Amino acid sequence: MKAAAPLKVGIAGLGTVGGGVLRLLETQAELLEARCGRRIIVTAVSARDRTKDRGTDLSAVRWYDDASVMATDPDLDVVVELVGGSDGIAKRTVEAAFAHGRHVVTANKALLAHHGAALALAAEEKGLTLAYEAAVAGGIPAIKGLREGLAGNNIREVHGILNGTCNYILTEMRTTGREFAEVLADAQKLGYAEADPSFDIDGIDAAHKLAVLTGVAFGVTVDFAAVHVEGIRHISSLDIEYAQELGYRIRLLGIARRTDQGIEQRVHPCMVPIGSPIGATDGVFNAVVADGDFVDKVVLVGRGAGAGPTASAVVADLLDIARGRSTPTFGVPAGRLASLVASPIDRRKGRYYVRLMVVDRPGVIADIAASLRDQNVSMEAFLQRGRAPGEAVPVVLTTHDTEEAAMQRALALIGGLDAVLEPPRMIRIEDF
Amino acid sequence: MKAAAPLKVGIAGLGTVGGGVLRLLETQAELLEARCGRRIIVTAVSARDRTKDRGTDLSAVRWYDDASVMATDPDLDVVVELVGGSDGIAKRTVEAAFAHGRHVVTANKALLAHHGAALALAAEEKGLTLAYEAAVAGGIPAIKGLREGLAGNNIREVHGILNGTCNYILTEMRTTGREFAEVLADAQKLGYAEADPSFDIDGIDAAHKLAVLTGVAFGVTVDFAAVHVEGIRHISSLDIEYAQELGYRIRLLGIARRTDQGIEQRVHPCMVPIGSPIGATDGVFNAVVADGDFVDKVVLVGRGAGAGPTASAVVADLLDIARGRSTPTFGVPAGRLASLVASPIDRRKGRYYVRLMVVDRPGVIADIAASLRDQNVSMEAFLQRGRAPGEAVPVVLTTHDTEEAAMQRALALIGGLDAVLEPPRMIRIEDF
Repeated sequence: MKAAAPLKVGIAGLGTVGGGVLRLLETQAELLEARCGRRIIVTAVSARDRTKDRGTDLSAVRWYDDASVMATDPDLDVVVELVGGSDGIAKRTVEAAFAHGRHVVTANKALLAHHGAALALAAEEKGLTLAYEAAVAGGIPAIKGLREGLAGNNIREVHGILNGTCNYILTEMRTTGREFAEVLADAQKLGYAEADPSFDIDGIDAAHKLAVLTGVAFGVTVDFAAVHVEGIRHISSLDIEYAQELGYRIRLLGIARRTDQGIEQRVHPCMVPIGSPIGATDGVFNAVVADGDFVDKVVLVGRGAGAGPTASAVVADLLDIARGRSTPTFGVPAGRLASLVASPIDRRKGRYYVRLMVVDRPGVIADIAASLRDQNVSMEAFLQRGRAPGEAVPVVLTTHDTEEAAMQRALALIGGLDAVLEPPRMIRIEDF
Repeated sequence: MKAAAPLKVGIAGLGTVGGGVLRLLETQAELLEARCGRRIIVTAVSARDRTKDRGTDLSAVRWYDDASVMATDPDLDVVVELVGGSDGIAKRTVEAAFAHGRHVVTANKALLAHHGAALALAAEEKGLTLAYEAAVAGGIPAIKGLREGLAGNNIREVHGILNGTCNYILTEMRTTGREFAEVLADAQKLGYAEADPSFDIDGIDAAHKLAVLTGVAFGVTVDFAAVHVEGIRHISSLDIEYAQELGYRIRLLGIARRTDQGIEQRVHPCMVPIGSPIGATDGVFNAVVADGDFVDKVVLVGRGAGAGPTASAVVADLLDIARGRSTPTFGVPAGRLASLVASPIDRRKGRYYVRLMVVDRPGVIADIAASLRDQNVSMEAFLQRGRAPGEAVPVVLTTHDTEEAAMQRALALIGGLDAVLEPPRMIRIEDF
């Protein structure tokens, strides 16, 4: 068999992930060639610092200061975009790559969440690939699993732990009993959380990934604006203790669910059964669960970040391109993607956990129960540990299935009671 | 865009899985066409009973009594082999398909375990696909995940729960406290176990699947004969209780591990930590864990059998073929597969659980401890519940890491002691 031409790759961004990709392509060169029938070589790079030691010889590689200029290099087959950010240089680089006939591999969830539909069309018009396995759930082959492995199914729901930083913080809070702020500060010192952690802890990163997963799972145009997003800043160690007592773990989940009203997309803290796959996934790990009409539930768990796992996902995309394996960006041709009809969070149906700080005096519980009853919310369990007449005590309750709008009205009533001292804390329960 | 020609499929075997494939292709026809750009149509079938109602109209389809004759039908692109069995009609059908230029999709692990290397070569010589997602772990996209999703990694180990019948039986034994024979009889009544259950409970089915996974994971020729196989007949409810006490679950696992001596392949009952992904996978579910040098551990869990999940896997393979996505059968070209250098079970390194029935009298434990010491086996824990001087009592011990050969010698010594009344029961511990 005659040797096929090598696949020529330009890498934009040589940070942690870019360095991992360089290392993987170098150390596994022989294996990769066996798998795809040709060599994969890096011929161009773009990075801020040319002098930094990246553990690999880049002297023969063409350097560019501007990644979007690199994308126009005539001697490239694929541009790997690892710059990040929903707009600016990352977007310009990807657009330039398509305009010049190069495939794109990216780890950029923000870009896809905001411009996924338009970029998929741009790729398709030129017969090019836009691949992004690394953008969702790091090393877990979630996009391939969903888009190809489960392609015979109508997906009913996809949900998962999509942000390792939040899962690490929540796990640490549980195992050490410490509060959020303290654990976050430690995570920052250890490099598990960014100096500005808001993208992670406010749920935005998970929402970017969920929006992309939703597009793939349901064959709809990515619609980040339709994602309801809450983060984990308000979770207290008290909630984590109560969760344990009730048989649950608290996770920040992304959930996309097909309902009669449309597609729900939401990112928020959830209580999930301790023994469920999601409940059992501690620490920095990610998990993705897809529920298909023929296959039922499939669970994928692995590392959601880090140089090695992310490089593994980037290189899987490169191997697909090198072998000529192509799949429409979001599973079906961009022109056939349906518009996403969003079902708002108000229509969410399910159970709720509520924690209140109340004055311990007769009649308080009756008032709370009446507020729930008035909104047709049915209480399932109620828990007050200890007594402290006249003083503030925490009280916890869970509900049977109810609609979010009714729950919110009940919470407004409860929050307005004299004896309720702080805004009620609510966490949705998901019994996967 | 002009419509591509439909993909013409012949199905050999219309049992549970074949019926599921027909139903999936019919109900999801539009979705599948959107995903692969062409229609997938069944033009020929082969089954014993033409009159049976399979819930779909087969009047326009060409019927064959002999599947291997169907495979020569000139108007077919793909033969789906769902007959089963390592030889006979299944093998003849697949060979005929390749000889006549048809791709093959099969759910037949026995065929692949015994003839995988030869069939991969036969397919490759003609530029055809041999696809078998459904052969391992049912609906879980394990083959695609490993062969494409993790293709950038050197795999260090792959292990998993590969037989749902065994996992169901072991789970039932734990949750009901009943013994193996009783639970098996119930499982047979419920259809979870075959009338002749030996393929499942003696570990042969799991060993077939492990041999295939080993080929894919390590790029070696499938070598079923090199798999060490033990089943679950000897597991007693007492072992399951002790496992729980020690923090473990008992699972029948398939494990393939790269070691300095070669590749270990073994199927046997294991104790695994309760909180591990494998420990948390109860009931009929399967789980596959792959450990790659860049990605670290990736866990895939889902239904390992049944019409829907298996059909989902078969159709995923059909979609790959319909879109022209091709991958070498075992990840690298058949001619480049290395011969498997087998590391025998004697060289297994790890911890052990041993249960003994001994006469409760002074000196017995000292004799057992001396037998272990004489073989350089270091005891980690020892457990005797209650006392019954002069009578038979169960005694349980666990060891630190040791080599299987030493453990076997120690067990022979212990089994020969006067006070040891029954052959020692040993279960390997795997601390994943």
